[in-house]
Amino acid sequence: MLREPSVDSSGSRFTPLVVLELTSDAKEEAIAWLLSRIRDREQNGGAELLVEQLGPGVGAEEKENPNMFLVGASVQRLLCGAESLGLFKEYNDGSMRAFTYANKHNFKDFTGDGDSFLSTAECQCIIKHELDTLRARDETHVPGYAQAKLYPGKSIIRRLLSKGILIQMFPLHEKEELKRLCFSWYKKVKLSLQPLDDIRHYYGEGQALYFGFLEYFTFALLPMALIGLPYYLFDWENYDKYIVFAVFNVIWCTVILELWKRHSASLAYRWGTLCMKKAFEEPRPGFHGVLGFNPVTGREEPIYPTSKRHLRIYLVSLPFVLVCLYLSLYVMMIYFQMEGWALSVYDEDPTFWTEILLFIPSVIYAVVIEAMNLIYRYAAEFLTNWENHRLESSYQNHLVLKVLVFNFFNCFASLFYIAFVMQDMALLRHSLATLLITSQILNQFMEAFLPYWLQRRRNKKMIRKVQKRRILEGKELPLPEQVRLEADMSTYLGTFDDYLELFLLFGYVSLFSCVFPLAAVLVVLNNITEVYSDAFKMCQVFKRPFSDPAANIGVWQLAFEAMSVIAVVTNCALIGLSPQVRAYFPESDTQLILWIVAIEHGLLAFKFILTFLIPDVPKYIQNELARLEFESLEAFKKKKQLHGGKCWKPRSSARSSEEDRSACRY
Amino acid sequence: MLREPSVDSSGSRFTPLVVLELTSDAKEEAIAWLLSRIRDREQNGGAELLVEQLGPGVGAEEKENPNMFLVGASVQRLLCGAESLGLFKEYNDGSMRAFTYANKHNFKDFTGDGDSFLSTAECQCIIKHELDTLRARDETHVPGYAQAKLYPGKSIIRRLLSKGILIQMFPLHEKEELKRLCFSWYKKVKLSLQPLDDIRHYYGEGQALYFGFLEYFTFALLPMALIGLPYYLFDWENYDKYIVFAVFNVIWCTVILELWKRHSASLAYRWGTLCMKKAFEEPRPGFHGVLGFNPVTGREEPIYPTSKRHLRIYLVSLPFVLVCLYLSLYVMMIYFQMEGWALSVYDEDPTFWTEILLFIPSVIYAVVIEAMNLIYRYAAEFLTNWENHRLESSYQNHLVLKVLVFNFFNCFASLFYIAFVMQDMALLRHSLATLLITSQILNQFMEAFLPYWLQRRRNKKMIRKVQKRRILEGKELPLPEQVRLEADMSTYLGTFDDYLELFLLFGYVSLFSCVFPLAAVLVVLNNITEVYSDAFKMCQVFKRPFSDPAANIGVWQLAFEAMSVIAVVTNCALIGLSPQVRAYFPESDTQLILWIVAIEHGLLAFKFILTFLIPDVPKYIQNELARLEFESLEAFKKKKQLHGGKCWKPRSSARSSEEDRSACRY
Repeated sequence: MLREPSVDSSGSRFTPLVVLELTSDAKEEAIAWLLSRIRDREQNGGAELLVEQLGPGVGAEEKENPNMFLVGASVQRLLCGAESLGLFKEYNDGSMRAFTYANKHNFKDFTGDGDSFLSTAECQCIIKHELDTLRARDETHVPGYAQAKLYPGKSIIRRLLSKGILIQMFPLHEKEELKRLCFSWYKKVKLSLQPLDDIRHYYGEGQALYFGFLEYFTFALLPMALIGLPYYLFDWENYDKYIVFAVFNVIWCTVILELWKRHSASLAYRWGTLCMKKAFEEPRPGFHGVLGFNPVTGREEPIYPTSKRHLRIYLVSLPFVLVCLYLSLYVMMIYFQMEGWALSVYDEDPTFWTEILLFIPSVIYAVVIEAMNLIYRYAAEFLTNWENHRLESSYQNHLVLKVLVFNFFNCFASLFYIAFVMQDMALLRHSLATLLITSQILNQFMEAFLPYWLQRRRNKKMIRKVQKRRILEGKELPLPEQVRLEADMSTYLGTFDDYLELFLLFGYVSLFSCVFPLAAVLVVLNNITEVYSDAFKMCQVFKRPFSDPAANIGVWQLAFEAMSVIAVVTNCALIGLSPQVRAYFPESDTQLILWIVAIEHGLLAFKFILTFLIPDVPKYIQNELARLEFESLEAFKKKKQLHGGKCWKPRSSARSSEEDRSACRY
Repeated sequence: MLREPSVDSSGSRFTPLVVLELTSDAKEEAIAWLLSRIRDREQNGGAELLVEQLGPGVGAEEKENPNMFLVGASVQRLLCGAESLGLFKEYNDGSMRAFTYANKHNFKDFTGDGDSFLSTAECQCIIKHELDTLRARDETHVPGYAQAKLYPGKSIIRRLLSKGILIQMFPLHEKEELKRLCFSWYKKVKLSLQPLDDIRHYYGEGQALYFGFLEYFTFALLPMALIGLPYYLFDWENYDKYIVFAVFNVIWCTVILELWKRHSASLAYRWGTLCMKKAFEEPRPGFHGVLGFNPVTGREEPIYPTSKRHLRIYLVSLPFVLVCLYLSLYVMMIYFQMEGWALSVYDEDPTFWTEILLFIPSVIYAVVIEAMNLIYRYAAEFLTNWENHRLESSYQNHLVLKVLVFNFFNCFASLFYIAFVMQDMALLRHSLATLLITSQILNQFMEAFLPYWLQRRRNKKMIRKVQKRRILEGKELPLPEQVRLEADMSTYLGTFDDYLELFLLFGYVSLFSCVFPLAAVLVVLNNITEVYSDAFKMCQVFKRPFSDPAANIGVWQLAFEAMSVIAVVTNCALIGLSPQVRAYFPESDTQLILWIVAIEHGLLAFKFILTFLIPDVPKYIQNELARLEFESLEAFKKKKQLHGGKCWKPRSSARSSEEDRSACRY
């Protein structure tokens, strides 16, 4: 059921899809100009969308922001937008092809005038794209805001955002669909997989890939958990029998990442994002520089010299990260001193209170780690922003790199120190267990339940407010209240933190689970609750995010692979430390180390060969893509022959638009 | 100056470009059928080329093969072929774009009807492509040869080749151009670089990239040679002072390979192959299987199950390679035993004859290594052929892998043994020097001078034969003799052996040059003579090869990178063995080894980060490619607006053929 259509200024009713919230003190002339640009015809450089001001709420109070606008579009406009976005949809023959308006009736599920052909997530994505590419013509600034400079070709929405005139732009939830999704996703008790296709349908491919990865990771951990459990149950104190586990670990972490690549490719193929081309990326809203000429487009736009950015990266950011790493090491050393001190106090006078004292350093250290991660995160965001990256993707890569290195160091440095400097395996197991369990509990609380509780309060307040005025039918809020409620919801900041959490969990398991075989079991349990809490927070706590047509998990694949290389090295070193192996070389440590190093190099080489041997895309998809390419080539040849072109046998690069669009090069 | 045009059957004169040599006992009906298919119009499935039988030579003897045919084409046909091949040519604005017939006047250097627009190498490549893609229609077999089965879509030329009816197909040399090229390349004494653009013009991009790489490699070695020379001159016996050199080595081999990638990309961009798309690859001539349906094209063609091929690779080829490696090890151990025996004989009775005896094992071993490499090469070719790869590229990759592993093992195993098991640095230096110098001398002799001497004899014989009948003007042979002479020349088998030689030289330098600093100097000298001898053999000894539009050095880049990883490990180990470093850890070998391992891991990590940080394609090319993409997008938008399409803002994937062709996606 679609939300009750609104009536736009021209009298036609439309389904609101996206909300624009301007500051409450936005100047009238700026608003009028913006609306006219959004409504203007495409030929005149407008976006040709439908837009309407949101009516006042039931209890319209002073503090309510009147400048909220609903954006929608006609079905035909959306279909054309789908073509210009290069959206892939399922074709009659079951393959995924780039949608074209001219060819629309050959696509599966296209019936009538196609108003249920695109999902709301796709529609919202199209509207976002159209709004983002709404460009200034000859305006020199936003009307009424002399300081909000514009130049021909500048994205209007991005300028409004960067100047704070536009507070936010977000897509609306679709209550009915969301309810169905919630039910099949986490509300019913079940033994089935997540409804990934429905998730993709509602939230887009980026989200669905995250949940797909979470699920895949959980299944990949099962064999390890199954081996780990008996190890844990029957060899609790006999922690030196972990060679088999370490060897298993090394192979496991290589194989699962390779298989994930294939799995991810087949998901992306099914969803049509595998071959989708990235559009030209716009500069980030916050990017600034002096006006110059873009070497690619030849247009006037802000230019910021790469050399300056490199100076900032290498002379400021890099040293800053190194200082932070040093600080983290320093804090770790203090922790070990405290630990030693507590132990000595306990040894001197073993009472109940001194026994409790033994736990204090660990608790303090855990809290300090979390706090440092948090503070560092802000610093990293600030610095990466200051580095003034032109593209969002470059910004994200630099941010991920910074955060990843520090988090890895912060979380694992103490474990490495215990394992390889102190060589105290009992302590390592103890630390690992505490770290894993506490961080899980903290995370799930901070991430889902706290925001949920806050949101619940807001919800109740809104319902009470509405109920004061009139009786609600079926507890459904009227549109203005619903929109205002969603506008107040927290913004989902992307999958960054979710992947980061998985990354650290993957680290705990792949690096040290041979010492603490229960780790895999704990992580499996955590992942299961994580699915529920993440699903819950996506559906109930956060604003709906714009869907992001991702073809893979991007930079995280690389991060996980780097971790798996570190895991090989670490596991080999742990094998070298095991008393069992040492017993083979009773006289000479040198021999032992040389053997371990040789084995480690062999494993690393094997790992790289394996990465090379296993194709990243399954054979059937490769065939399917080649078939599409071939078909379009043949179709073009026939067409050329029919039309009697001057040349007889043009090849793939010489195709007409229609065939080209349906071809999917990989 | 073009060769004197011949007259084809239809009466028009054409320049012969490619020669087809059929067996002298080929059946008349087969010949007539082949010629008619080659001459037939494209609409009827022919190649629409000009073809003519080569006239008898001056001294037409019995043994002369009459079935030699000259193939050429009209200028318009060649231009259309260039379009269908997807050839990139320089556009008016200096960028490289895919040539299109319709747009021909916008390309640089296109004047008149364009008969000097394409180089002869390009024309020959086009003709080869057209002949290769000349397909059977409803013929079930080659007329007159019931066993030479055909099925619709089968390449006729490939079937004729695989059945031995067609002996060879080769392009003709262009005497005048060749003379000019020889002069600027190796005949004049000069301090300038090689004329890479001219080489590319005459031999195509694959050859030019090889010579470019050879030149680059030589220059890259210069700093090492400059450091090595004083090391060698002043520290002759003080071979333990090589740490600085080892560190330099590690950084050097990483950096030069990364920079080569960039250099290669800019060469390929300049030559227009960087963005050229590979056409659908035909099955190899020798590929066989039962008729089935190709999953990509849906056509009937031989299918050979991948699982069977994998069985052959993993159950036969892999064990065979391992046995060969074992044999090589065995031979090496015999060599060391002989060495020891010779030494003991010399120690017992040190006379002149026993001193000579000391050299005997090395000489025998060197000869045996060469012989083993040669025999193995044949075995590898046989096995790879037997694996029945469908595509030439896959065949090549498997062959390169087999040969590379064995050659590496065969050449370096003894050096590794001396370095790390015997730890005798003086012997290592000695062995390295002998191996390097002898293999260089042998190679240059076997590779250039022997074939040259043979070819010279043939040349003289032919000239004498012609002179017997009539007087030659300016020593130029008449066409029939020239063609027959070229048909007898050795066939150039591609750059495989040349790259293999460079690969082994790169290995000697990067692995062990810290022990024998003169290695770099020797390799530089070798490379300089190599340029001359390779240039000489390309111009004088071999048939002209078909040009190969390569964009990079392919699998060899990977091979060199693998070698550079091994070099890091080896150099670190050599540092660990150096007495200087050992002096720092007088008490514990364990500490030393741990430090070395840690440093090695750090260096490897640094290497991978460096590979990641240095972009493979220089910024200016990235910009240029993005600009072309953007331009074609804009052109398409304008066109759509003019024509008033139903959708207003189609993006890159929705372009018409003309813009698409000019766009170069990277």
